[in-house]
Amino acid sequence: MLLTTGFLNIVRNCANKTAVLDGDVRLTYGEFGDRVKRLAGKLQEMGVEKGDRIGLLMLNSFRYLEVFYASFMLGAIAVPLNIRLAGPEIAFILNDSGTKVLFFHREFIPVVYQLRQDLPGIQHYVLAEDVPIAEASAIFYEDLMLEPVAPQEAELMDEDTATIMYTGGTTGLPKGVMLTHKNLAVNAYQVALATGYSREDVYLHAAPMFHAADGASTFAITMVGGTHSHVRAFEPKLVLETIQREQVTSMLLVPTMINMLVNHPEVTNYNLSSFKRLLYGASPIPAEVLKKAISILGCQFFQAYGMTEAAPCLTFLRPEHHIVDGDEKATRRLQSCGQPLFNVDLKIADPDGNEVPYGTVGEVVARGPNIMKGYWNRPEETAAVLRDGWYWSGDMAVMDEDRFVYIVDRKKDMIITGGENVYSVEVENVIYQHPAVLEAAVIGVPDETWGEAVKAIVVPKSGQELTAEDLIAHCRSQLANYKVPKSVDFADALPKSGAGKILKRTLRDQYWQTRQRQVN
Amino acid sequence: MLLTTGFLNIVRNCANKTAVLDGDVRLTYGEFGDRVKRLAGKLQEMGVEKGDRIGLLMLNSFRYLEVFYASFMLGAIAVPLNIRLAGPEIAFILNDSGTKVLFFHREFIPVVYQLRQDLPGIQHYVLAEDVPIAEASAIFYEDLMLEPVAPQEAELMDEDTATIMYTGGTTGLPKGVMLTHKNLAVNAYQVALATGYSREDVYLHAAPMFHAADGASTFAITMVGGTHSHVRAFEPKLVLETIQREQVTSMLLVPTMINMLVNHPEVTNYNLSSFKRLLYGASPIPAEVLKKAISILGCQFFQAYGMTEAAPCLTFLRPEHHIVDGDEKATRRLQSCGQPLFNVDLKIADPDGNEVPYGTVGEVVARGPNIMKGYWNRPEETAAVLRDGWYWSGDMAVMDEDRFVYIVDRKKDMIITGGENVYSVEVENVIYQHPAVLEAAVIGVPDETWGEAVKAIVVPKSGQELTAEDLIAHCRSQLANYKVPKSVDFADALPKSGAGKILKRTLRDQYWQTRQRQVN
Repeated sequence: MLLTTGFLNIVRNCANKTAVLDGDVRLTYGEFGDRVKRLAGKLQEMGVEKGDRIGLLMLNSFRYLEVFYASFMLGAIAVPLNIRLAGPEIAFILNDSGTKVLFFHREFIPVVYQLRQDLPGIQHYVLAEDVPIAEASAIFYEDLMLEPVAPQEAELMDEDTATIMYTGGTTGLPKGVMLTHKNLAVNAYQVALATGYSREDVYLHAAPMFHAADGASTFAITMVGGTHSHVRAFEPKLVLETIQREQVTSMLLVPTMINMLVNHPEVTNYNLSSFKRLLYGASPIPAEVLKKAISILGCQFFQAYGMTEAAPCLTFLRPEHHIVDGDEKATRRLQSCGQPLFNVDLKIADPDGNEVPYGTVGEVVARGPNIMKGYWNRPEETAAVLRDGWYWSGDMAVMDEDRFVYIVDRKKDMIITGGENVYSVEVENVIYQHPAVLEAAVIGVPDETWGEAVKAIVVPKSGQELTAEDLIAHCRSQLANYKVPKSVDFADALPKSGAGKILKRTLRDQYWQTRQRQVN
Repeated sequence: MLLTTGFLNIVRNCANKTAVLDGDVRLTYGEFGDRVKRLAGKLQEMGVEKGDRIGLLMLNSFRYLEVFYASFMLGAIAVPLNIRLAGPEIAFILNDSGTKVLFFHREFIPVVYQLRQDLPGIQHYVLAEDVPIAEASAIFYEDLMLEPVAPQEAELMDEDTATIMYTGGTTGLPKGVMLTHKNLAVNAYQVALATGYSREDVYLHAAPMFHAADGASTFAITMVGGTHSHVRAFEPKLVLETIQREQVTSMLLVPTMINMLVNHPEVTNYNLSSFKRLLYGASPIPAEVLKKAISILGCQFFQAYGMTEAAPCLTFLRPEHHIVDGDEKATRRLQSCGQPLFNVDLKIADPDGNEVPYGTVGEVVARGPNIMKGYWNRPEETAAVLRDGWYWSGDMAVMDEDRFVYIVDRKKDMIITGGENVYSVEVENVIYQHPAVLEAAVIGVPDETWGEAVKAIVVPKSGQELTAEDLIAHCRSQLANYKVPKSVDFADALPKSGAGKILKRTLRDQYWQTRQRQVN
């Protein structure tokens, strides 16, 4: 189950097939494989050995894939960095992982320049661009392509680590999730089978490639010999243009991106007929957004649920379960993240690990060949989530009698008010049904009487009138009293992680900063 | 990568979907899963523990699948037996494997009765039929279904053995190939992805279920939630009827079965429009047979090449490479068994393990997560074929510059005549092009001058005239002189293994029996 075996088979079996599209770049698998080998050969000359870490501080690019596969050929470990992190966070990850070679894009020349003195472990900097830029003070990527230097391939095992992907941004200090070749290969198989990816597919990397959500398809597309297409970063118009020009069939977006795409004023001007399937995930999608997306894109929808620690998919909601005008059961399913994937042993558990009855809230706990080896150099944090072979996700959910999973909240985002549990996502779903709401987040804020009180922070759609009283009345018509927000704040935007997740921790900090503890 | 996790997910996720069709039997995945659990529970009560062996002396049936999955749930090892073996061979395998419980069909009541005293290890006999038969002197299968006895599921690892499949018939004493959960799951993934199996598929078990060739799809079909359909044994008319009645989409046949099916006088009377894909394998297919099959079945063709030791697939020839009236390259590809599958690291090697140049004959050598753990209780024979992680197949082949593999012969079937190597398959392919030939085998026979001489044994099509002189002249027009058969014998039929392979060893024995050694 080595990503290298799979890669080399496709490179040779499909030598004349298009592997990557990226702006003016178009490479066959034969050419792509040749470049990867040259890069691996040069990295080896530069001293990279099995187990070394290779950092990527890059936007989306075909070179992202080249660095991945060249690292794997040497048995080195790819460390993709979240591009939205601040300098000190980047330095923390590069030092924590012990990164030896850093590949970066031109956008990061200033931050890399500024950080260098704090990065004693990095031996080589490589500017991963089409043309050299003097002020980068780095090796120029394309100079590594000039000679055919064949690497000595590493002997690898299924359990060897292929990537360390840092999670965080939503909670605490970043932790490096060690994913093995087997973890990523099993996920690729599951995703390819669940979606039906084939050699005819053109997958657009529109969400950030550093994130496991887009990464869910990266190795699957290579596995089937499909084509990788790229936009440097998500921008709705650029995505629409690229779908039309490169006959894109598939991509993954997070819900906020879908929202932006389907609300783009020019969306109907593009010919999107090649587009067959939209994966979404990383956070639940409001039903209203999904309905609009279904009507505009007219493609198959797949919801993936998981997390980096699961490499990343645990469940899939399949196209046949995306019914917008069905009966009550079908409508309810739209709120679900689907059923466990084939190889995933998943249960909704009480704190002792016992499966709770259908319909009862518990924690999502899973085991299987896709579950991470552990957190890099964090034995205690690893032990806290990997217990007796089971991974404790921190996500609270219910399962229905047909095994559809409904995420109700992050354990940390659950609000306890007057002794009652309020799941923020449930309240948000109701708020999103209001036609004037663009984005919303519900958090608990300190309250003398109730311990925590439910608060909504809302971004109205531009040009729409919306008052707190309106929204509270709307919620009261559909929710039990204790779940209705006690207060509503309006904002121009919500803070988000690199993957587009709303950062509730940051929101909470604004209201809790004068307190000692975050639970009253 | 446990077959049990996958099975239980599909059983619960697709509870209302049809799992098996078999005569009048039609079970949903929910019902099927319930029966498997009852069977596992009863087997546990009967004393079956993790690692115990469970024998199957059965024709094709949905109960074959039930015994498989019930065994896996307990961590027991399924031992499918070749139904064409003689009594002493069956006894050998049951004793060699240490089988504890034997499931058998009514056809085997006499042989089981006769063997009992020689099978001290078997504690329970189970007649796997719809209705009890007194003279079977066995537990009646459906009696094990009466109560819902929940099994205590075994804790399993990827490397635990799931089946022991005996190979042999073509050479020497049977050896038990230990295939792990991972071996079989990886093969299932590769086959499902290569074929595009989905929940909509109905796979007909038409080739014997005990054999790895049909088994290549067994776990793949369950994995995707497809439907298993069954005929008790291959019979062309029954297969045609079943395809029409059950809207079969897919099956695997060995070439001799394809030959029988497409030459059946009533083949055009059936509506085969549901049928989408034919897998074939286990031996090369003559180009003329394939052409006729393509014209009659009008479906996608997939050639799988492999062996039990590879669980079983190593390469696939995909539909787009089955072009009957293409250029020289396309025509040549029809003789190929395709390109290595994603996870298979395959090379054509010289005796030292070095990859030979494209176009040169060498041995097929492979490694990957699908390669067997070893032969049951045969450390020496295991060591002879598993060396430094590579499996030496004994198949001689060439690879072309596009990585298509052409099997030229079994190492043991290669004929050495006057110092030249003659690959029997090459000569057979030419013989099959003669319109009067139904089946043919080419072997080496003792010769005072040449060491071995090339001999063809041929079954003419019924009602066709064919002489040795005709056939030799036909061969001389297309083959180098030393490859042309020196003699031709005619026969009414050729000896075959349970999988439909022509038994060249048996043929050779007729000509070599007065000699001491088989190589002169």
